[in-house]
Amino acid sequence: MTLAPRGRASRISGMASTFGQIFRIHTFGESHGGGVGVVIDGCPPRVPLPLEVVQRELDRRRPGQSDIVTPRKEADTAEILSGLYDGVTLGTPISIIVRNTDQRPGAYDEMALKYRPSHADYTYDAKYGIRAPSGGGRASARETIGRVAAAAVARQVLAELHPGIEVLAWVKSIQELQAEVDPETVTADVIESNVVRTGDPAMVETMIERIKSIRADGNSVGGVIECVIRNSPPGLGEPIFDKLEADLAKAMLSIPATKGFEIGSGFSGTLLTGREHNDAFRMVDGKVRTATNRSGGVQGGISNGEPIIFRVAFKPTATIMSSQETVTSGGANTELAGKGRHDACVLPRAVPIVEAMAVLVLTDHLLRQRATAGADH
Amino acid sequence: MTLAPRGRASRISGMASTFGQIFRIHTFGESHGGGVGVVIDGCPPRVPLPLEVVQRELDRRRPGQSDIVTPRKEADTAEILSGLYDGVTLGTPISIIVRNTDQRPGAYDEMALKYRPSHADYTYDAKYGIRAPSGGGRASARETIGRVAAAAVARQVLAELHPGIEVLAWVKSIQELQAEVDPETVTADVIESNVVRTGDPAMVETMIERIKSIRADGNSVGGVIECVIRNSPPGLGEPIFDKLEADLAKAMLSIPATKGFEIGSGFSGTLLTGREHNDAFRMVDGKVRTATNRSGGVQGGISNGEPIIFRVAFKPTATIMSSQETVTSGGANTELAGKGRHDACVLPRAVPIVEAMAVLVLTDHLLRQRATAGADH
Amino acid sequence: MTLAPRGRASRISGMASTFGQIFRIHTFGESHGGGVGVVIDGCPPRVPLPLEVVQRELDRRRPGQSDIVTPRKEADTAEILSGLYDGVTLGTPISIIVRNTDQRPGAYDEMALKYRPSHADYTYDAKYGIRAPSGGGRASARETIGRVAAAAVARQVLAELHPGIEVLAWVKSIQELQAEVDPETVTADVIESNVVRTGDPAMVETMIERIKSIRADGNSVGGVIECVIRNSPPGLGEPIFDKLEADLAKAMLSIPATKGFEIGSGFSGTLLTGREHNDAFRMVDGKVRTATNRSGGVQGGISNGEPIIFRVAFKPTATIMSSQETVTSGGANTELAGKGRHDACVLPRAVPIVEAMAVLVLTDHLLRQRATAGADH
Amino acid sequence: MTLAPRGRASRISGMASTFGQIFRIHTFGESHGGGVGVVIDGCPPRVPLPLEVVQRELDRRRPGQSDIVTPRKEADTAEILSGLYDGVTLGTPISIIVRNTDQRPGAYDEMALKYRPSHADYTYDAKYGIRAPSGGGRASARETIGRVAAAAVARQVLAELHPGIEVLAWVKSIQELQAEVDPETVTADVIESNVVRTGDPAMVETMIERIKSIRADGNSVGGVIECVIRNSPPGLGEPIFDKLEADLAKAMLSIPATKGFEIGSGFSGTLLTGREHNDAFRMVDGKVRTATNRSGGVQGGISNGEPIIFRVAFKPTATIMSSQETVTSGGANTELAGKGRHDACVLPRAVPIVEAMAVLVLTDHLLRQRATAGADH
Repeated sequence: MTLAPRGRASRISGMASTFGQIFRIHTFGESHGGGVGVVIDGCPPRVPLPLEVVQRELDRRRPGQSDIVTPRKEADTAEILSGLYDGVTLGTPISIIVRNTDQRPGAYDEMALKYRPSHADYTYDAKYGIRAPSGGGRASARETIGRVAAAAVARQVLAELHPGIEVLAWVKSIQELQAEVDPETVTADVIESNVVRTGDPAMVETMIERIKSIRADGNSVGGVIECVIRNSPPGLGEPIFDKLEADLAKAMLSIPATKGFEIGSGFSGTLLTGREHNDAFRMVDGKVRTATNRSGGVQGGISNGEPIIFRVAFKPTATIMSSQETVTSGGANTELAGKGRHDACVLPRAVPIVEAMAVLVLTDHLLRQRATAGADH
Repeated sequence: MTLAPRGRASRISGMASTFGQIFRIHTFGESHGGGVGVVIDGCPPRVPLPLEVVQRELDRRRPGQSDIVTPRKEADTAEILSGLYDGVTLGTPISIIVRNTDQRPGAYDEMALKYRPSHADYTYDAKYGIRAPSGGGRASARETIGRVAAAAVARQVLAELHPGIEVLAWVKSIQELQAEVDPETVTADVIESNVVRTGDPAMVETMIERIKSIRADGNSVGGVIECVIRNSPPGLGEPIFDKLEADLAKAMLSIPATKGFEIGSGFSGTLLTGREHNDAFRMVDGKVRTATNRSGGVQGGISNGEPIIFRVAFKPTATIMSSQETVTSGGANTELAGKGRHDACVLPRAVPIVEAMAVLVLTDHLLRQRATAGADH
Repeated sequence: MTLAPRGRASRISGMASTFGQIFRIHTFGESHGGGVGVVIDGCPPRVPLPLEVVQRELDRRRPGQSDIVTPRKEADTAEILSGLYDGVTLGTPISIIVRNTDQRPGAYDEMALKYRPSHADYTYDAKYGIRAPSGGGRASARETIGRVAAAAVARQVLAELHPGIEVLAWVKSIQELQAEVDPETVTADVIESNVVRTGDPAMVETMIERIKSIRADGNSVGGVIECVIRNSPPGLGEPIFDKLEADLAKAMLSIPATKGFEIGSGFSGTLLTGREHNDAFRMVDGKVRTATNRSGGVQGGISNGEPIIFRVAFKPTATIMSSQETVTSGGANTELAGKGRHDACVLPRAVPIVEAMAVLVLTDHLLRQRATAGADH
Repeated sequence: MTLAPRGRASRISGMASTFGQIFRIHTFGESHGGGVGVVIDGCPPRVPLPLEVVQRELDRRRPGQSDIVTPRKEADTAEILSGLYDGVTLGTPISIIVRNTDQRPGAYDEMALKYRPSHADYTYDAKYGIRAPSGGGRASARETIGRVAAAAVARQVLAELHPGIEVLAWVKSIQELQAEVDPETVTADVIESNVVRTGDPAMVETMIERIKSIRADGNSVGGVIECVIRNSPPGLGEPIFDKLEADLAKAMLSIPATKGFEIGSGFSGTLLTGREHNDAFRMVDGKVRTATNRSGGVQGGISNGEPIIFRVAFKPTATIMSSQETVTSGGANTELAGKGRHDACVLPRAVPIVEAMAVLVLTDHLLRQRATAGADH
């Protein structure tokens, strides 16, 4: 246990580990300790939920899955404790736990004393006056296991309520390496066929080489993940504050290592004039469609039926294998040597996390929309 | 009244007009109708609240304030209905209303029948099965009056609880025109001294010319607003989901016409390696500081005491003076002629709105932090 | 303004004026000041809302309506500021305000200095360090105007979504005077036909006499209000914590002057054995019914389709015309003379308030039930 | 698995298993299945939390603890999965699980087909279209394990933030048998010294005899539990809707088998006049006190520093050993024979549950009060 130095102890608060309004998830757990997990409340009853669908998503984000991610070995085996009967949801809270197995506190001793640059060590101390020094504690990406497990359940709900909705993410760029991907046609098969999880087969080898060379150098890289939601019905999103893009932005910026979010034309759209940027409406097969999609599938905070497209910026991994200047928790300047087992590039494992948060936002908004449906619903 | 066409009427839901957890605001009102306003709940008692501080902020966002914004004339006069006694807050809900005065429903007749491209007309119909056709209804930027009024109250709270905190926003770019601004030193005086509200005096005339020429052409432009929070204490932000940057992202993406958010190094940070990107810690005057600030003042979702810096992308105004292809609410292809009184560039008036949302997020997190402070608080 | 004495000033907090999860109301306003009112968020769109239905409910609770209630004259005229178009709800927040007109701060001078026994003067000072001394401020029953107005809107929603649902309350007892009322058959006409609002015509005169004689003595009385919800569908209520009876209990205990709540057999049910108390199930006209209704229409926190019956205890009005021992806000023992214009018995005017809170709970739970309905809904 | 009969399947919703605003608990689990438990969010950091304090409270509510409660044998062993480091809270979510061990589905076969009278079988089917037939599923009192565990944590928080606060409950009556207990002086030792958990030693034997004789008859009884909170600071409670008594009422009515709640003078206070009922204020040792306490420690929804006293009505246990008329889930009249292992009187085991809910309400309100404390806090 690390107690914060005197004088900062007065800034101490609690956590906010709930996401969603109707389909609500509550995550828990540190990187070291008994385990991590999630309680899902507000899941509709009578939805089939095979354990395998949860495990499959967890396998997509677990360490050690390929030779370009962290070599830590954790099976991340899910157990469902409640909320099911004969493989079907009861409408009661679904609790899922994953035991921690890779306990090597010795590997992290130096962390207990020195703040790792661009990690959350210092701010956790500043806020709570205490932190779990092993492996990042609650700030570890291991926390996202609960989100991914919950999203696997949410996907089952979507499949029941709105079959046909697809949520797909892929690596759009690593540093300056840009993938060319068509959000309207890219498939899960293409993305999952390569360990980078990019949607552009032509860029796979280049990206892998970049990650391996940067890792060999003890350095790290970041990039951009792009995500599309296809076949969403129009009408999702709750103005004024719970606009669909607002909730997506919050969801994405809650993922560790993210620094930006943009939807549709995003930042580059600011270079255009209104005449260039507006999406003309056209009737197509009896439906209201837009000729272009600079809106990114959302107008006025509400989905318009077009593909919902957004991008998320991930900074380079903060853990590097160089010696860095930093301070001790006692308030002295020092240096920190790099060590540990980490991803030189988090993006391949972050793809299922981006998808998970998008699925959670979408499912919650679908259920919210049902709540206040008009009398003729 | 516009009733949605048959077949879409089944997608009908309610609104979500509450923002904040402790310092909670509830906005209401359409662009046309009796008025707009806000109810603020959770405001601490005994905070001085002169009506003038509310009016001053409203004046910063009202139409007609300069020759580069919409010429509509609305005084936007605030009335405080409750929550005060002798100019001091009671701790009870503070309600503020602003009457609508500029009622010209005739000017908008065509809107009732045709969906304006890249506006919310179609999506509101798709969601609610009904919309107020005059002036955008609830989707009008006029709704932000309630936010700005609430933030004026929040600023009074900040001044009581944490004097010295500054929240400043400015126009960073209009199309490709970039202002050079130092977030650590720019002042409100510099920003308010020009009608564009940029922080770079050298760019004022160029930006004004761009806005005027684009307006003369019946076209519109967008850009980027940058915002800094200075002198924030470390420790604000509530992982895992209510991280400070996540709540800021949501707040910003809830503002009309926004398409992106980035904090610190943002999207361009994805081009760097970890070695280039990490912020080394150093002790300075007995405080933990970072040598650089690519984190943007937030690490692990919690403020670290450095300036909190973020940027927001605004698309070009959707209303333009050209004829555009669109569809009618009845489902027929048609054209819409441009008319009405609108901003060719919303950014000058959006600066106080960005500041308002930042102030609301900050105030709420300051109060949340107090709630679960440790026993030695 | 009354500032709390030194030493108590540190206990100071904000308010919680929101009720409901989907159909959410936010009330505001003090007894004196600009006015009182409510913002309703989450109301379904396309519900007809004539202003008269709001005014009619406000008239049922306003002062001066008969010769057994307070003679204060306030018209309590409602104005709807937003959320409507052509008399139909838009799905956007509906704001309703009622101006305060009866401003006689002079009548309350003594209150600013002396705590009225069994009122909220002392506790507001203890909590907020400040209070609005005129007429009770936020603790005044005048605050319930917002609830009653919101419930008038909710009744319109019920009429659209579940026509046939009836919510009726009546005076069950005043002191030991007990009305005999059959909850299954009593009508609004019977209740509204007498100024006491009891459901038992035989008790009307006796009750009126009691109220008049107790008022002539400068004293006050309390009693019990009973309420029934008829034709509620089964399935409403959200275990575990938002059970229907739990939300009803909270709603009722939030009404000023209430001291107790019981549902079905209530406290007297504790005298029975299980064999006497259980409600046998029987099929009746193809429906599952219970032979008796000691459950009060709710089992396991969920409505079972039987009439939902509960009772609420109101203490005698705290304002009496006798001199009473009390203390000053400065901490000295003193006496307070009785004066002012108050109800010697609040129950006749509390009947519409009990109904209002029941309607709000029911409407919210109906909308919640829709949110997570299964795929075959 | 029981699927609801056709025609009711359309009424299907999710659960609401969160309680509290700042100190929030999320319970999960059915009586049969992997286990039950709770996730606690918003717990302040640096609070000592020995596992024994959790286990001790669970032992007070577990089956088989004496010869007047259900003889089921379940150890109810708690495991803390997260939120702790070296026995101290981290400020992160604390998850506690208790495995289910007494799995005897065979004992409940008949329940899957027949609705037990005055249980939740029918209403769960009506709401969810499915239920876990074994042992009551989520409606089982076993769900309260999560509440009791969370309250054990909350007690540690109280001990840190407000040492001296006491929360004590006892059996006030069983049927017509009334205990004489002074809420100001009764001790935990007296209550825990007898298996009934009454505060009146003179009534212990009589109550035990009543429970044993009623059990021998295959019947059941209910009664009233009284609870006191001593040494609460004034100022707790959040008008208008989250008044302290309103949140207590909701908390108590969320406990299985409860039918009523009253605070202070309660229902019998309706028999008094205002002159008899009012609590005069007096200065005592420099503090504002009341000469009597008919208010029950709460005025205007806010604690006044006097003991907070309330009572909760529990109906007789629904499970009895007689044959009862009922219907099948298929819609046919039938009879249900009594069997199984249940409490003939739940009150002795409900005492720690009442305390738990009171502790949770109190802790949450203490933290809420801190959030919006004034600048001089």
